[in-house]
Amino acid sequence: MRAEIISIGTEILMGEILDTNAQYIAQRLPAMGIDLFYMHQIGDNRQRLVDLITQARGRSDVVLCTGGLGPTEDDITRDAIAESIGEQPYVVPELEAHLRNFFERRGGTMPEQNIKQATIIPSGQSIPNPRGTAPGWWVEKDHAIIVAMPGPPAEMTGMWSNDIAPRLAERSPDSVLISRTLKTTGLGESTLDEALGDIRAGEDPTVGVYHKADGVHVRLASKAVDEAAARARIEPVEAAIRDLLGDNIWGADEDTFQEAVARLLDRRGLSIAVMESCTGGLLASTITDVPGASQFFRGGLVTYTAEAKIHYGVDADVIEAHGVVSNETAAAMAAAVRRQFDADIGVGITGVAGPEPHGGQPVGAVCLGVETPDESYATGYTFAQTRAAIKARAVTSALTLIRRAAIGDLSSGSSGIYRRL
Amino acid sequence: MRAEIISIGTEILMGEILDTNAQYIAQRLPAMGIDLFYMHQIGDNRQRLVDLITQARGRSDVVLCTGGLGPTEDDITRDAIAESIGEQPYVVPELEAHLRNFFERRGGTMPEQNIKQATIIPSGQSIPNPRGTAPGWWVEKDHAIIVAMPGPPAEMTGMWSNDIAPRLAERSPDSVLISRTLKTTGLGESTLDEALGDIRAGEDPTVGVYHKADGVHVRLASKAVDEAAARARIEPVEAAIRDLLGDNIWGADEDTFQEAVARLLDRRGLSIAVMESCTGGLLASTITDVPGASQFFRGGLVTYTAEAKIHYGVDADVIEAHGVVSNETAAAMAAAVRRQFDADIGVGITGVAGPEPHGGQPVGAVCLGVETPDESYATGYTFAQTRAAIKARAVTSALTLIRRAAIGDLSSGSSGIYRRL
Repeated sequence: MRAEIISIGTEILMGEILDTNAQYIAQRLPAMGIDLFYMHQIGDNRQRLVDLITQARGRSDVVLCTGGLGPTEDDITRDAIAESIGEQPYVVPELEAHLRNFFERRGGTMPEQNIKQATIIPSGQSIPNPRGTAPGWWVEKDHAIIVAMPGPPAEMTGMWSNDIAPRLAERSPDSVLISRTLKTTGLGESTLDEALGDIRAGEDPTVGVYHKADGVHVRLASKAVDEAAARARIEPVEAAIRDLLGDNIWGADEDTFQEAVARLLDRRGLSIAVMESCTGGLLASTITDVPGASQFFRGGLVTYTAEAKIHYGVDADVIEAHGVVSNETAAAMAAAVRRQFDADIGVGITGVAGPEPHGGQPVGAVCLGVETPDESYATGYTFAQTRAAIKARAVTSALTLIRRAAIGDLSSGSSGIYRRL
Repeated sequence: MRAEIISIGTEILMGEILDTNAQYIAQRLPAMGIDLFYMHQIGDNRQRLVDLITQARGRSDVVLCTGGLGPTEDDITRDAIAESIGEQPYVVPELEAHLRNFFERRGGTMPEQNIKQATIIPSGQSIPNPRGTAPGWWVEKDHAIIVAMPGPPAEMTGMWSNDIAPRLAERSPDSVLISRTLKTTGLGESTLDEALGDIRAGEDPTVGVYHKADGVHVRLASKAVDEAAARARIEPVEAAIRDLLGDNIWGADEDTFQEAVARLLDRRGLSIAVMESCTGGLLASTITDVPGASQFFRGGLVTYTAEAKIHYGVDADVIEAHGVVSNETAAAMAAAVRRQFDADIGVGITGVAGPEPHGGQPVGAVCLGVETPDESYATGYTFAQTRAAIKARAVTSALTLIRRAAIGDLSSGSSGIYRRL
């Protein structure tokens, strides 16, 4: 079963709102065995919408429209569907009575232009909208289904769950698409792509490799008659990839990197404290985004100046000798904050988020230090990015080092300063 | 000039990521006089992409593609553009050398499949990508422009600003849509809507009122032959709104609230330090997102535990008497961190981000304190939201208090504890 989504509204094309409705629907189609081939956003222009609906219903089994069901002249979705299939809308007395009643219960009278919300066409059925005045339409013509849902997300999702999803599910698809995403660290996209060579050779499940901010993701997807059958095909391939990649895999599916690191710290009973300069508190904030962080997060210091670093225990001579942005200073920050908060793992971050160079280092230079009771490690990076991206990449790299510290893998670093304590 | 946007990537159709690239571009086209008629999202399927590009370049002057420029087999955008216009990609020696050099500088060698990132077609020009390995394409054929930009937002926006936007702007449109957004704090959407009654009566510029996370925005928009003519219509209406709203307006257009607060601190020569509990460093990180924050940001403490708060100078008796989540503790945190960093303004945040209640307070309870040399003020909030949203709203509220402290408006608070020092 093939679907496409059409989101209608000039405010989307003006960039004023993000089309979250399409994402909501897209997330729910694979498990129903429905393949989504296109999403479109289009403005409040009747002829263009008529043409797009006509093209879509010619090539897809289901056309899912959102938006354009309001009472104003700009709301053209009903008329466009009607024109595309060559039918004429007419007022349904029961819908009109319901609508007038809706306004009267709120102490008003229905503006006459709202009457268009009480219309239907011969091939259509009206779909109730428990959260607004605009009913939806379910239209079947020439073997294609055309659905019109309201644009406000609360109304759309309510109608989707109550009516549209169950109706689509009844069409009993002969297959479902189930996916599994394994999230890795420490390997590049191309390296991973090559390493997976043989495993990727199979057609089912398909294996996709995607570079993301938190590492490279490997996505397995299988289409089968039901979820159990799809999972049975995915599992052996997942096991083979886990054998191949081992500790490079840090999580799966909806896991975030900070959650994975947090779970690891929690499981191993390790506490942590961080001293940040160029990231300005973002590492602490990211770690404490995880519910239950108070179990292992001891605290953080944002030491934006050299004086503050020294005040909280960094040796002034280290900064003097090596510079404020150096592996040595990062290691000293990690040691100092570990002492300040009596934590198992201390982390130090010093660098140049820009826009100006600082401490003799260029924009994007970042040094990270980590200290455990047994080891100390510090290493440098250059992130050629914007200020926000430098901060984000420094935090992801710091989480990577924290993870390596927790699994006892600090000494494997190919660059930087490693010491046993 | 007519445009459409095509975003390429199966992960968009799976609902795994939101297409923020299309929104970014859509927001920037009106001021260039370019009308956007369609956005599309499509998967990594070559034939469907070829057909869509062919259709798009037949009806639009500019087709803006993002995504699908990576090195893997799934990355099909270059091939699809080439096929649509009937040309053959070839390797450009300079691009190849640049690419190999990129990998060598990072201590590796280029995987051979990356060679496709060094290709071009006869009707195309390569566009540099300062933030990644995938150059873009600018293709002109049969009176249509086809642009290919990378999918990662940082790479796409960098290429857009550096090359694509200036090239499009050269094509001299015949009318432009200019908008001006005034950003306010301290007023509700309905209040503002009513206050603007007479000003809204005019047709040009149009005046829209929108509730956003950082306050209520008032958007003025005018369409005219050129930017100067549009601005001439907007300016008197903006002046009238500024007269009406005064200090409630904190910024305009692309300003972020943290930038506006930072500019104010910088202009008034005020330094700041923050002690955070439930926000976990997010306030410090948000303030230090602003370039030049080192001019006024002295430092931050993330004191997740009562012990840490006491260690850094909060009176244990205050916590004991009033609870760790209380206006009194927030005020004591503001005072303590102001002393720690010798800053003009100290800020304290204590609250319950969830998921569990804490210190006798429910999830979403947040107390904020602020201290200047002359004044101390603390007040409480209840944010009925998720953990991330509670943190974000606490930070916005803290920035609001910092702004009030800087403009001498702390004593106007209708609730909370105010003291002159």
